[in-house]
Amino acid sequence: MSKLLERAVDELAKLPGVGDRTALRLALHLLRQQPEQVTAFTTAIQDFRTRIRYCERCNNLSDEPVCPICSDPTRDGSTVCVVEQVKDVLSIENTGQYRGLYHVLGGIISPMQGIAPSDLKIDLLVERIARDGIKEVILALNTSIEGETTSYYISRKLEGLPVTISAIARGIGFGDEIDYADEITLVHALHNRRTL
Amino acid sequence: MSKLLERAVDELAKLPGVGDRTALRLALHLLRQQPEQVTAFTTAIQDFRTRIRYCERCNNLSDEPVCPICSDPTRDGSTVCVVEQVKDVLSIENTGQYRGLYHVLGGIISPMQGIAPSDLKIDLLVERIARDGIKEVILALNTSIEGETTSYYISRKLEGLPVTISAIARGIGFGDEIDYADEITLVHALHNRRTL
Repeated sequence: MSKLLERAVDELAKLPGVGDRTALRLALHLLRQQPEQVTAFTTAIQDFRTRIRYCERCNNLSDEPVCPICSDPTRDGSTVCVVEQVKDVLSIENTGQYRGLYHVLGGIISPMQGIAPSDLKIDLLVERIARDGIKEVILALNTSIEGETTSYYISRKLEGLPVTISAIARGIGFGDEIDYADEITLVHALHNRRTL
Repeated sequence: MSKLLERAVDELAKLPGVGDRTALRLALHLLRQQPEQVTAFTTAIQDFRTRIRYCERCNNLSDEPVCPICSDPTRDGSTVCVVEQVKDVLSIENTGQYRGLYHVLGGIISPMQGIAPSDLKIDLLVERIARDGIKEVILALNTSIEGETTSYYISRKLEGLPVTISAIARGIGFGDEIDYADEITLVHALHNRRTL
């Protein structure tokens, strides 16, 4: 087999969820594209990897020292939504319903994976609250043990600071079926019931 | 959203079978890799696209003017297996059972897709047979109408040349179930039955 093809397939097969067969299919797909299109592809990835940085306020991905969300004067700078990762920011932004700022922890506390509180941007969060006049912190972490632990740790860290701390509601997701919901979810859903 | 991330996601989402969500996952995966690893990834793809060429004898992908298979003196130069595309060469090579050479047509005759015989490397095949002392041509094209048409066209083109023309056997695939096989396959399988 051609070494050039082999190397391209090997590299493509390193992507998550891409096996050797798919990698070959992708390589042959790229071969059918115009050279300029492939250059646009590799340049976009290379530029992303080397030029992207983290917003110095919220730790979200950013092209500039401060990200577009943090530097948007129309957003509500008194509310910060704390999330685990960049993907979560995109999910919440996609709802179009949240107008506050974010804080990306860059992970959650996980003794199993060796992630300690000091590995996360929790100190940066505490600094921001003290400095930027933040009035409400919304914890939007996953409903795992690690997520709950991290939420608990952060709420303890913020004790005594003049902020309201809330957590996003737990309940039955839209389209989920009650008989498939686990007990913890059901307990939360019952406990957080709303009067209609 | 960061423009750098957006551009990387847009480019990754152009890959076949990759939607926006997967593209984002891939982009964030690449972000977690060392910059040198991402450079190895983009360089391999870029080099493949710009430096790969087609073997001037068999039209297979090649790093050199003549591919490793065509230039391997231990292979049987009197037999040529005609396939539609590069992938088919790799599939047959993976069996480790074929020691002849290949000829990659680069497609099959398809009026629907506007692919005429002149778009394929059929003339190159005829030249090779006349020049290189080829004694047997094995047609290994897909069992579609287009594949059958192309096989027929090639066998007509080779009429009068001193070569044996054969086609790979049609039958029930290993692991396939007879009651799921279509009629044409079953007819072929019965017709090509072997005495045990």
